[in-house]
Amino acid sequence: MPSFELTPPSGTRDFLPEIVKLRDQVISTIKGVFERFGFVPLETPAFERIEVITGKYGEEGEKLIFKILKRGTQAATGETDFALRYDFTVPLARVVALYRNQLGSIFKRYQIGPVWRADHPAKGRFREFYQCDIDTVGNCSPIADVETVFAMTEVLQALQLPNFTIRFNSRKALKGLMEAYNITPEDERKVMIALDKLDKIPLEKAIQELIAQGLSKETIQQLEDDIQSSSPEEQVRQRLHSSEIGKQGLQEVDRFQHCLSPLLKTGKTVFSPFLARGLDYYTGIIFEFGIDGFSPSIAAGGRYDGLIGMFSKGNVPACGCSLGLDRLLSFLAEKQMRQTTNSPEAIVCVWDEHFYLSALQTACQLREKGIDTECYPGRGDLRQQLRYASQKGVSFCILLGPHEQAQGVVTLKDMRFGIQYTLIPDKVSDEIVRLRQ
Amino acid sequence: MPSFELTPPSGTRDFLPEIVKLRDQVISTIKGVFERFGFVPLETPAFERIEVITGKYGEEGEKLIFKILKRGTQAATGETDFALRYDFTVPLARVVALYRNQLGSIFKRYQIGPVWRADHPAKGRFREFYQCDIDTVGNCSPIADVETVFAMTEVLQALQLPNFTIRFNSRKALKGLMEAYNITPEDERKVMIALDKLDKIPLEKAIQELIAQGLSKETIQQLEDDIQSSSPEEQVRQRLHSSEIGKQGLQEVDRFQHCLSPLLKTGKTVFSPFLARGLDYYTGIIFEFGIDGFSPSIAAGGRYDGLIGMFSKGNVPACGCSLGLDRLLSFLAEKQMRQTTNSPEAIVCVWDEHFYLSALQTACQLREKGIDTECYPGRGDLRQQLRYASQKGVSFCILLGPHEQAQGVVTLKDMRFGIQYTLIPDKVSDEIVRLRQ
Repeated sequence: MPSFELTPPSGTRDFLPEIVKLRDQVISTIKGVFERFGFVPLETPAFERIEVITGKYGEEGEKLIFKILKRGTQAATGETDFALRYDFTVPLARVVALYRNQLGSIFKRYQIGPVWRADHPAKGRFREFYQCDIDTVGNCSPIADVETVFAMTEVLQALQLPNFTIRFNSRKALKGLMEAYNITPEDERKVMIALDKLDKIPLEKAIQELIAQGLSKETIQQLEDDIQSSSPEEQVRQRLHSSEIGKQGLQEVDRFQHCLSPLLKTGKTVFSPFLARGLDYYTGIIFEFGIDGFSPSIAAGGRYDGLIGMFSKGNVPACGCSLGLDRLLSFLAEKQMRQTTNSPEAIVCVWDEHFYLSALQTACQLREKGIDTECYPGRGDLRQQLRYASQKGVSFCILLGPHEQAQGVVTLKDMRFGIQYTLIPDKVSDEIVRLRQ
Repeated sequence: MPSFELTPPSGTRDFLPEIVKLRDQVISTIKGVFERFGFVPLETPAFERIEVITGKYGEEGEKLIFKILKRGTQAATGETDFALRYDFTVPLARVVALYRNQLGSIFKRYQIGPVWRADHPAKGRFREFYQCDIDTVGNCSPIADVETVFAMTEVLQALQLPNFTIRFNSRKALKGLMEAYNITPEDERKVMIALDKLDKIPLEKAIQELIAQGLSKETIQQLEDDIQSSSPEEQVRQRLHSSEIGKQGLQEVDRFQHCLSPLLKTGKTVFSPFLARGLDYYTGIIFEFGIDGFSPSIAAGGRYDGLIGMFSKGNVPACGCSLGLDRLLSFLAEKQMRQTTNSPEAIVCVWDEHFYLSALQTACQLREKGIDTECYPGRGDLRQQLRYASQKGVSFCILLGPHEQAQGVVTLKDMRFGIQYTLIPDKVSDEIVRLRQ
């Protein structure tokens, strides 16, 4: 017995077969939708050169990077040369810079897989977790923003989650709002962070935070008045008209709404003028998908026209969205989504060594007829074999013992009804096909 | 522009869309076969606690482990707490020990995914590479060995690779052979390693290696005589009868052959009495799949009755096989396996901002009818949009400009034949369905 912990590293998980089946099913649904929208799959390595990953995610993000030690004689130095990917966006930027000529002027890709962050594990927050990303990179238009959101709504519909809300804003509108409230560029970031919480914490708490950030009494009063007015959106819209970038932002927001709302089959859209989104790199439309009564943010994204340029010459406009698979799956599991079973349809029981070949032969024949079959792979008496089959939820057991051999027959047990049949060997697969109906 | 290398870390790869498609197709074929044999999927984290990984792969293996630096204030110590998985067998052993009660007395699982080794990258040898593993763990019988091999033969057949050879041996037979040649237990390991190369290097070279290992002249002479005799297998069989464990091994080999050969539809089996297989942990039947004229070892495995016990109480018999996906894929690519294309079937061209909504609406309608459709996500004149569509290999373009709007029609371009149609909007999807046939 080992003297160490057998559980997986904190914040990571072992997925036992039933769960893998559910995950695979959901991933395949998501892939299908992405491909229906013309996104194509891209896969990048689990780790990147460390200089690709570092310096992209801000001070807080930097601490969460898993770094890989140099190997061999260099291991002793404690230096690191690679780091596990933190998201799919930075690897995408690298790939676009590297293969620009092969990818064409516009590149629509999806990537689904694990990313790693050394966050404090908590309910629904893991250190190894799956993201499902779509991004459109290159000479792309506002159409790309809307198609990105459509694709995600189709995913939620395909997973039978029609009750979602898309909260959206434009970073330009938010920037304009800061101007209208006379917030200095230095204070902008922290004020945005506090405002972003307005949907998650009570107004008073957010106000307290803004006071703590040293915001002027006058500005706070304006904000409070706007938020508590009979039509906060109208108030904000009026303020935005006083700022050039604010007007641009409002135009983006209206165009987005104009294209999106009439086509949405389920879910609803809400213009959220205080929505900020954590990541620094957004430049235009930003959005967040929440599932009503479950999670305020299951997927999120927006336009980021500066990031890809960090690795490439020139400006490369881009927009995308990332869906968190794990939170979605825990929701689907709560909803007790029907899980497919893992059991083979039939098990061939094995008498003793003299029957190995005939048992294997029978299993081969059944599989050839499209019946998932396993040959009992253990040692044990018949009762034990039948118990194994019943625990696995197998429908049919095939028995070929000395008794059957003497008579030139096979016994077929229908485990669902506890009925058994005596058949000539050639008829077993036909009989199973008949009985399964 | 960044000042650093944009290529992925050495020994890892970016997979562009066409290749991902081929890989996905092959993985899904393999999964299908594994499930047909009653194997169920298990997924374990990319990294494990470092003590789970270290001390399992011998001195050479140890150097190839990717270790993860502790984070936060501990990063400065250069200490590591996690390591990337090196294979799927050790994580399986941990999982079996941890969830023994949930998994039942016999557990048949598959796992497909990347593993990581800091090997020197070379043609066909990567540091991030995919393995496809099946293992049967628990109270398992020789049936499990044969079913493991069957499953792999079915995989090769499903991938249309019928020309394979299964070389097999038993570790017990090999051990018996060492006894018969009077090789001391201390010399056994290095002699086995040299003998294992007999199929890959000329006899003289192997002999030189054995001389270098200090093997006695007499033993070398016996070996040479056996190998060069008219029937080496017969010679070896006779020698094995002089050793108890050798006789047991021979029995294993014969039983394996007896069950396997009559049922094999394609491929051939060869008893290879000098086959050793690298990994220390094998205890019984071992085997290696080679694709004739391409690779001597594309998949390999065997029985290992001691390994799982490293993590659990008591002995836990097990057997399994690991298929290397990357070598297989490079072979399939050489064979120019037909690749599915990634292109959507239709692209809706976008005139200008006033047509955003109607373009998006048309794309939605087509997708609803099961036609993979993308709405041109960029900015550019019509010629550029048609070029984009043609580069993607799209079959149909839909045009909705001011001209069409004025007449209440839509233009449908069949890109395959350069023909275009004028239609009322409601008929576009029906027409595409008609034309695609």
